[in-house]
Amino acid sequence: MEVTFQGVLDARRRIGAYLRPTPLVPHPLLSQRLGCEIFVKHENCNPTGSFKIRGGINLISRLSEGERKRGVITATRGNHGQSIALACRIFGVPCVIAVPHGNNPEKNEAMAAYGAELIVHGRDFDEARLRVEELQQERNLRYVHSANEPQLIHGVGTYALEILEDLPDPDCILVPVGGGSGISGVLTVFAAAAPKVRVIGVQAENAAAVTRSWREGKRVETDSAETIADGLATRVTFDLPFGILSQKVDDMATVSEAELAAAVYEYFRYAHTVAEPAGAAPLAAVRQLKDQMAGKKVILVLTGANISTGLFREILSGGGKRQEAGGRSQRSGVRTWDAERGTRNRL
Amino acid sequence: MEVTFQGVLDARRRIGAYLRPTPLVPHPLLSQRLGCEIFVKHENCNPTGSFKIRGGINLISRLSEGERKRGVITATRGNHGQSIALACRIFGVPCVIAVPHGNNPEKNEAMAAYGAELIVHGRDFDEARLRVEELQQERNLRYVHSANEPQLIHGVGTYALEILEDLPDPDCILVPVGGGSGISGVLTVFAAAAPKVRVIGVQAENAAAVTRSWREGKRVETDSAETIADGLATRVTFDLPFGILSQKVDDMATVSEAELAAAVYEYFRYAHTVAEPAGAAPLAAVRQLKDQMAGKKVILVLTGANISTGLFREILSGGGKRQEAGGRSQRSGVRTWDAERGTRNRL
Repeated sequence: MEVTFQGVLDARRRIGAYLRPTPLVPHPLLSQRLGCEIFVKHENCNPTGSFKIRGGINLISRLSEGERKRGVITATRGNHGQSIALACRIFGVPCVIAVPHGNNPEKNEAMAAYGAELIVHGRDFDEARLRVEELQQERNLRYVHSANEPQLIHGVGTYALEILEDLPDPDCILVPVGGGSGISGVLTVFAAAAPKVRVIGVQAENAAAVTRSWREGKRVETDSAETIADGLATRVTFDLPFGILSQKVDDMATVSEAELAAAVYEYFRYAHTVAEPAGAAPLAAVRQLKDQMAGKKVILVLTGANISTGLFREILSGGGKRQEAGGRSQRSGVRTWDAERGTRNRL
Repeated sequence: MEVTFQGVLDARRRIGAYLRPTPLVPHPLLSQRLGCEIFVKHENCNPTGSFKIRGGINLISRLSEGERKRGVITATRGNHGQSIALACRIFGVPCVIAVPHGNNPEKNEAMAAYGAELIVHGRDFDEARLRVEELQQERNLRYVHSANEPQLIHGVGTYALEILEDLPDPDCILVPVGGGSGISGVLTVFAAAAPKVRVIGVQAENAAAVTRSWREGKRVETDSAETIADGLATRVTFDLPFGILSQKVDDMATVSEAELAAAVYEYFRYAHTVAEPAGAAPLAAVRQLKDQMAGKKVILVLTGANISTGLFREILSGGGKRQEAGGRSQRSGVRTWDAERGTRNRL
């Protein structure tokens, strides 16, 4: 099955009974600070706190009777899993979800609260995912890949439609890229409806497989994906979204751990909204690209709110200081985030 | 002009071009903790971060040509002011806003960023408001009262319509009460469309003029309104909303400063969403009313997100501890919030 603009339109009709559109909000304080007109697509306002629920409802609602009875299985760092768990709850489908060791505990508890069976396996998302691919055969479950699923991409693409209804003439849109399903939806809609708008993908420097693959013209894997942006933490590229992205994206940017933390802080301080680090990546990138963004209408997709309380508290406490000390240029004094994750990041 | 259900329907048509509906989200973790089915109406997802913008756009869009040219003036603790400032920006209307000394600086800077002229006067909202009533005559401006305005109430009432579209059979709805415009909208809609649903207003113990007036059967003023919930901090009742409330409300509850802070924390920890203390008041109240809420479908209106970064940081740092220590029952160890506001609260 191909990913098409018509598929996004079909998804919209299907999810409309379950989800309200999210707001696209102009933020004058962020605009003043960044020297361009900032509009934030608040996907953090969705149920489950992220854009993923759009895809989950679209996909799970289309399962066959047999698939619904047997149930589904998937691997996740959290937002995809919350989406599948809630969609399965809505449609009465059994749901098994694998997460890696050390996963965000607040994402885990949310998935469990939706009724999913949780399995903890592997040191990162990709290892959890490989375990799921084994289990799926043993248990005869429908495997829902977090990225190689046209109906997930069609579902999440619906936010791009809403953006163009609310703001018909943006210059540029910045989208976080983990597995790549979100940006694939945006690229599918914008290629058909607004081909002149620049679409820029944003990754964590520490998990830049897609960016490197796109730049180098061949698909590469990275050895690790250690970033506070758990929503971006994959070491590989995936066939379906990478195929779409490599044909259609205008540019890719990467942001450091310190820049991600600073953007989480900035979203709270100047817009009173919660961004998990993955969701704040576009704000971090627009600061890097300030010169080319000057005076432009820029859309930032704030994909999710599911940051753990400990990390958020730490960023609020330290974030202001980093900001005032000058952000990107002053990395030496930056704290690491190992207390939260049990790992050490190269800051 | 009277407040009517038809007025709310008219407001909805008018604001539809500017605002998307906000989501009503079931929150399973909060539901588990509170023993009832919690649905949160996320009015913190609106532009300006609060429900007030619905009323601002409805009212400002209806001004006469002459009123638009002369401009408007109002007094606020912040959310009403941000609403009027943004609505004035949309419709090209000059806007003067008075706030009391010591007002939330982040609300002030947001109003200024929308282009409003800011005047700082008086020790609290009611003193700022009296100054505005003088200035309005001197400068010949249209005075927009924050509560005694039917078109504000019609506008904010639109969120109540959206609630009933998304959840037709709630048992109960809890709504923060400051000046009373928000709950007046809810009462108007629910009396017409869902008269069996219990509507409960929630105030801060420290600013309980409406609650006391309703209980005592005569309108009283309080000497002070010192609460971290700036959105609830009024010492008086207002004619129009108090008239509606006193006829239609089912019950009133009050919550302490410690309960407000704990609820702000709980919203972040279990729903990853930002509630200013006024917006968290219903969550604080439902914990108090746990016995009568058991097993019920309960709607909490989360009216706004505009908490200052300093106060939020302080609540995140201390909030968990207070929660674990047992909340309401253990007030002795609770910190005061005087660092933030320059005042001392009786905790």
